[in-house]
Amino acid sequence: MKGYAIGIDYGTNSCRSLLIDLENGRELGSEVFAYPSGKAGILLDPKDPNVARQNPQDYIDGLVATVSAAIDQAKRADANFNVEKVIGIGVDTTGSTIIPVDASGSPLGLDRRFADNLNAQVWLWKDHTAHEEAAAITAKAAEMRPQYLAKCGGTYSSEWWWSKIWRLRNVDLEVFEAAASFVEHCDFIPALLTGNCHPGAMKRGVCSAGHKAMYNAGWGGLPDKEFLSALDPALADLRDRLYDHAVPANQLAGGLSEKWASKLGLKPGTAVAVGAFDAHMGAVGAGIKEGTLVKILGTSTCDCMVVPNKDPLADIPGLCGIVDGSILPDHYGLEAGQSAVGDIFLWFVNHLVPDSYGATVDEKFATMEAKLADLKPGETGLLALDWNNGNRTILVDVRLSGLILGQTLHTEAHEIYRALIEATAFGALTIIKRIEEYGVPVQEVINTGGLAVKNPTLMQIYADILGRPLKVSASEQTCALGAALFGAASSGRMTLSEAQANCCQVRDRIYEPIEANQHVYEQLYQHYRTLHDAFGSTGWSGTLDEVMKGVIAIRDAARASA
Amino acid sequence: MKGYAIGIDYGTNSCRSLLIDLENGRELGSEVFAYPSGKAGILLDPKDPNVARQNPQDYIDGLVATVSAAIDQAKRADANFNVEKVIGIGVDTTGSTIIPVDASGSPLGLDRRFADNLNAQVWLWKDHTAHEEAAAITAKAAEMRPQYLAKCGGTYSSEWWWSKIWRLRNVDLEVFEAAASFVEHCDFIPALLTGNCHPGAMKRGVCSAGHKAMYNAGWGGLPDKEFLSALDPALADLRDRLYDHAVPANQLAGGLSEKWASKLGLKPGTAVAVGAFDAHMGAVGAGIKEGTLVKILGTSTCDCMVVPNKDPLADIPGLCGIVDGSILPDHYGLEAGQSAVGDIFLWFVNHLVPDSYGATVDEKFATMEAKLADLKPGETGLLALDWNNGNRTILVDVRLSGLILGQTLHTEAHEIYRALIEATAFGALTIIKRIEEYGVPVQEVINTGGLAVKNPTLMQIYADILGRPLKVSASEQTCALGAALFGAASSGRMTLSEAQANCCQVRDRIYEPIEANQHVYEQLYQHYRTLHDAFGSTGWSGTLDEVMKGVIAIRDAARASA
Repeated sequence: MKGYAIGIDYGTNSCRSLLIDLENGRELGSEVFAYPSGKAGILLDPKDPNVARQNPQDYIDGLVATVSAAIDQAKRADANFNVEKVIGIGVDTTGSTIIPVDASGSPLGLDRRFADNLNAQVWLWKDHTAHEEAAAITAKAAEMRPQYLAKCGGTYSSEWWWSKIWRLRNVDLEVFEAAASFVEHCDFIPALLTGNCHPGAMKRGVCSAGHKAMYNAGWGGLPDKEFLSALDPALADLRDRLYDHAVPANQLAGGLSEKWASKLGLKPGTAVAVGAFDAHMGAVGAGIKEGTLVKILGTSTCDCMVVPNKDPLADIPGLCGIVDGSILPDHYGLEAGQSAVGDIFLWFVNHLVPDSYGATVDEKFATMEAKLADLKPGETGLLALDWNNGNRTILVDVRLSGLILGQTLHTEAHEIYRALIEATAFGALTIIKRIEEYGVPVQEVINTGGLAVKNPTLMQIYADILGRPLKVSASEQTCALGAALFGAASSGRMTLSEAQANCCQVRDRIYEPIEANQHVYEQLYQHYRTLHDAFGSTGWSGTLDEVMKGVIAIRDAARASA
Repeated sequence: MKGYAIGIDYGTNSCRSLLIDLENGRELGSEVFAYPSGKAGILLDPKDPNVARQNPQDYIDGLVATVSAAIDQAKRADANFNVEKVIGIGVDTTGSTIIPVDASGSPLGLDRRFADNLNAQVWLWKDHTAHEEAAAITAKAAEMRPQYLAKCGGTYSSEWWWSKIWRLRNVDLEVFEAAASFVEHCDFIPALLTGNCHPGAMKRGVCSAGHKAMYNAGWGGLPDKEFLSALDPALADLRDRLYDHAVPANQLAGGLSEKWASKLGLKPGTAVAVGAFDAHMGAVGAGIKEGTLVKILGTSTCDCMVVPNKDPLADIPGLCGIVDGSILPDHYGLEAGQSAVGDIFLWFVNHLVPDSYGATVDEKFATMEAKLADLKPGETGLLALDWNNGNRTILVDVRLSGLILGQTLHTEAHEIYRALIEATAFGALTIIKRIEEYGVPVQEVINTGGLAVKNPTLMQIYADILGRPLKVSASEQTCALGAALFGAASSGRMTLSEAQANCCQVRDRIYEPIEANQHVYEQLYQHYRTLHDAFGSTGWSGTLDEVMKGVIAIRDAARASA
């Protein structure tokens, strides 16, 4: 009897609980709670489209609602279940999603003084108000501390820790001065559950610290005061009110407090794991291990790998982050990703697909997928770059844009949709090639996320382009599953890898590459790569004569063989 | 009292008559006749999409119907009018539109033996069955007679005279051997009207001969027999049954025959001019003269200029054709063009514009034009190449394709439509620059055709991009008007330039370039030209780093100034 565990996954618009049987990963209870505040849970500012904040009360209300409901479901689903057997709780969230807190660790957004002040609320990951601060941090780090940038892909983002906190300092001194400290959402929930809320004492996860706050044990934790002072002396002062040490999520944040045990209907003292980000825990829920690439395919994508931290690992140019312990303990966590994948398809269907394909978005997608599945690789004569939202990996450049070539007077919408799918797959292949070039072999690919589950046409194109079998995680809730596994591991009753071995499965259907398709895509990829390097500010120089004619020749060959 | 003239304009799907007062160009009568045969007048082969033929009987029926009706209208419109005062008739047609004829000059398509044989019918300009023959002619000319190619832009087309005749020889020996000769549609109608139908005796126009049949007085007329024999001895034999001499369209084809005078209700002996192509006569109807570029803006475009033939004129690389007398007598006619303009917009609206813009094509265009007119130059952040149907001038390359870059997750259809309009204007600017580089200054631009008349938003964008005032011809029927002017000139009662001076007017509204817009478009054109040269197989080599970022910088500046 291995017991049960609960994972709690905080997304952008809602949170979800998942209660699993640690014997086999069986999902006994799960409940979703949509954040009631703002627009789909996001507090907006009509005057500034970059603002995206959240109400911390939504997190607390969601915690109670989803965990209680999952426990009730589990009781009905499994006669053996009782709350005594829940050995741990894990939490994942979006990030950097930053909560200004008072000296007791309570969110300033809950303080009536600041109830109407958006700056005192939670700064959601997708808040882009701090783009000027991000640019200044990148410039200063390039000048003073290039090693900081080397671990985060060369560019510090407006979505990250220091950019946002500095922004708050610049736009709202009153709230900044009222904040005794700042806490990532993923650290706040375990602190709340364990009653260990004091900002100086609460456990901080290395996932958020390493990927977003430039934390690295190798240079003594957070960025040094000299560097922070060069940005703003107020940030150097703040450093003393943050933390010196951050730990992986298999460690114990603490035992569940009496108060929260009673609220949730669980046993006091139940292990609560240190928190981490959704993608990283999702990778664990999908079964990440050495040699396995986990791809989370959604509106954007996240690609995760791990390398034992006893092995030498070079900085890999263009990777978003390399952080010891951010995914699995004792392993470097490698994070890459594409800034838009599903979002490109949604943009296309919403803006450029006529109603002859269907009246709704779902109908349009279904009609286009049926039509494009009949096309051979290369037959569209189209080639696209997947940069409508910039390129995260390997170019790390937001000032790039989409491109499509090969249009004739007969090109149809479903052909363009196919070209866009192919472009995202070529982008994915470029990431794999970069990782392998730096000595990390990709021996297995496990996919998870909405597109992996719902779009078999896309998955086959991906298999043909990546040239490898593609597996799909059995669970549709790999983030919450991963969080539950961390909860179990934090109890000390099993290791994380034992928990993964019991609970992580892939589906029977594996997408195998089709050799003939692979061959055509290898040719097309050469042209994609030429465009990628030519437009991607990589220092490329050369000729492009052969791109259009090459794509037309591939098209003609595909049509002749049809 | 200068009299009246009739122009007859044979288009792809219909023909039109126009009866004008030569005093002032007033249009007193005009009638359209839709060809009844085939699909919209085109005989198709379900087994081969390249086939496009026509029924010669449609031309004859259209002649009677449209001219009689125009005369009736003129009688009602003008009390002074009577048929005695019609001093000339002119004819323009599409081309190469080729009629196989028997020894008497009668079309083989009218012979009951061949009634059901598509190969015996008229080979319409857009018939593309002869692409292999065209490639072979280009290759052989490059080897043996490079001077032939220099006058037609470097590539011989499948739409042209020798390709089609050779194709007939290769696929249908019976019809080829039954053909005593071949006649361009524009030469056939004047021959018919004058009763001067014998293939060896009828007048042949230099416009069709020079632009399509490699005719040039400088090398002794049609291509020499050695060259034709190298293609196929049957073509060398045929040369003796064609013609030695071709003349400009201000010359007299003959007097109207008794038979046709009676059919049409005109005076026998009325002057009938030598025929020419629609675009060339349209340029004359729009008022072409030295220094004036006439742009015919339709589904594709045709750009015409003239240079006095006493002046030295270099071959201009990439121009479709340079033929002495093809537009105005005693002038070289220069023909350039873009293989798709309106067709690109039609493709886009038919395939990629959602119904939120409107239920019909017209509504979608209207909504998009209203929205895009509110945008500043550069504000879309998009840049396109106008090559969906290849590039006629200056690259002369059908194996090119469309390209668009700059898409984000917010790009909307009307923004892309604006980028496509801009791309066609950049293509037009590239043609003007090429012509001027070779010593032919463009001092005035007169536009005609559907887009010039119906799309003021497009015209303003064109003025801003071309950086010059754009005039629009007053007549909406410049081809038929030009034909009528040639009819008048062929009578000897006035010169062509006198007829133009009386009858060619431009509209009051002149599109003046807006300086601020011009400045932005000069920057964007640099990026267009980089893409043009890089993708256009021009021997370009270099870097593209600055294209996407440059377009984004222009976009940001445009938005900041909005």
